[in-house]
Amino acid sequence: MRYKIDLSYDGTEFHGWQIQPNAVTVQQLINDKLKLVLQEKINTMGSGRTDTGVHARKQVLHVDIQKEIPKNLIFRLNKLLPDSIAIINIKPVKDDFHARYHAQSRAYEYLIHQNKKPFLEKYSYNFNKVLQIDLMNSACQILIQHTNFESFSKVHTEVNNFNCVVTQAFWRKEKNHYKFYIKANRFLRNMVRAIVGTLLEVGEGKIDLDQFQQIIISKNRNNAGRSVPAQGLYLTEVNYDKV
Amino acid sequence: MRYKIDLSYDGTEFHGWQIQPNAVTVQQLINDKLKLVLQEKINTMGSGRTDTGVHARKQVLHVDIQKEIPKNLIFRLNKLLPDSIAIINIKPVKDDFHARYHAQSRAYEYLIHQNKKPFLEKYSYNFNKVLQIDLMNSACQILIQHTNFESFSKVHTEVNNFNCVVTQAFWRKEKNHYKFYIKANRFLRNMVRAIVGTLLEVGEGKIDLDQFQQIIISKNRNNAGRSVPAQGLYLTEVNYDKV
Repeated sequence: MRYKIDLSYDGTEFHGWQIQPNAVTVQQLINDKLKLVLQEKINTMGSGRTDTGVHARKQVLHVDIQKEIPKNLIFRLNKLLPDSIAIINIKPVKDDFHARYHAQSRAYEYLIHQNKKPFLEKYSYNFNKVLQIDLMNSACQILIQHTNFESFSKVHTEVNNFNCVVTQAFWRKEKNHYKFYIKANRFLRNMVRAIVGTLLEVGEGKIDLDQFQQIIISKNRNNAGRSVPAQGLYLTEVNYDKV
Repeated sequence: MRYKIDLSYDGTEFHGWQIQPNAVTVQQLINDKLKLVLQEKINTMGSGRTDTGVHARKQVLHVDIQKEIPKNLIFRLNKLLPDSIAIINIKPVKDDFHARYHAQSRAYEYLIHQNKKPFLEKYSYNFNKVLQIDLMNSACQILIQHTNFESFSKVHTEVNNFNCVVTQAFWRKEKNHYKFYIKANRFLRNMVRAIVGTLLEVGEGKIDLDQFQQIIISKNRNNAGRSVPAQGLYLTEVNYDKV
């Protein structure tokens, strides 16, 4: 039987989602604990990678399990997993459900705070320059009119194309921080962090809206801003048509 | 010149506020960094101790500094201190100002969440029993009618008396957690955590309101509930008449 599992993790201590040799990753721990409880071979497939230090309020995976699953599986996994990983939900799905290929859209959030805040330092990026949020939101309006995001992609990457349909992108001032929200059908590696780094330059007045547009059109990563730190980034949504 | 310093800290990694041999404490780090910047002998006096692992949204100290302080002292201290400690404010006060003796009241908060939540596990207590908040708030009303808190005090303690004037105590359901707020002129060691442990027994229906009152009247720590974990506790206010 195939299952869809929703989970959440604090990425601080992990080398990202994806299994890799000689590093502690979220997927590795999930596989290990599922194997321990179910006593069968386990292969999970995530909706997508998150990089080292990136958090997930919601990540989704699918997994095939031969045995009947125990009723308290969520409880047992959560006991075995570290405090930084929580299983939210497990449900049976059709055999052809695919966590990665069937995801219609994903959303990320990026948090920025100003002035040192002990309870946010691991969960948000401390950036102390004055930011013009209105300008950054105008740049977001330009962003969503484009579909080629090569300027914000990791340079040596395996992808076939750089096309993403960004359906929403905006900044909002919240109580303790500025929050950037972005939703798209897919994301390239490092894309959100490179977009945020470039939008911060807009907010600081280092580049204007026309220059921002030129950066996108150039399809050259060197023209865009730096990649902002991982600790401010959260995978928050993975959406499926129907499951 | 005497200065009042407001600060905030994530207590996770510290052996509490107060300087002690062979342990990393918040006060030790503050003293060290002040000494490093000002190049003079430094003795700080906090408003009160916080125990190992307890957080402070606001702690207050006073310190005498001979030299004129540099204008960017807050900035420099925050650069030198770890992410988990932030200096919020530094201001000159009268020579007889005393952070501990002049504090008119303090307030603490205790956070509880239900179900595993990766971003709260270090900052709140995961307690999964069903809680009757109305009953817990009725118990709070009983609590504030009493002044002797020996039942909630650490047993081997140096204090002269167990009298505290609790002016406010209540539970509130917030978005991600239950929050307990308590304000008093003074607190005994371990008092908030023992009160919360006992109130949880009220909330679970293990003891009724009459039994709760008897526990207070007994002046015997053995009758009260257990001390809940440090990571849910925050010092949030230290109030002075005028400074």
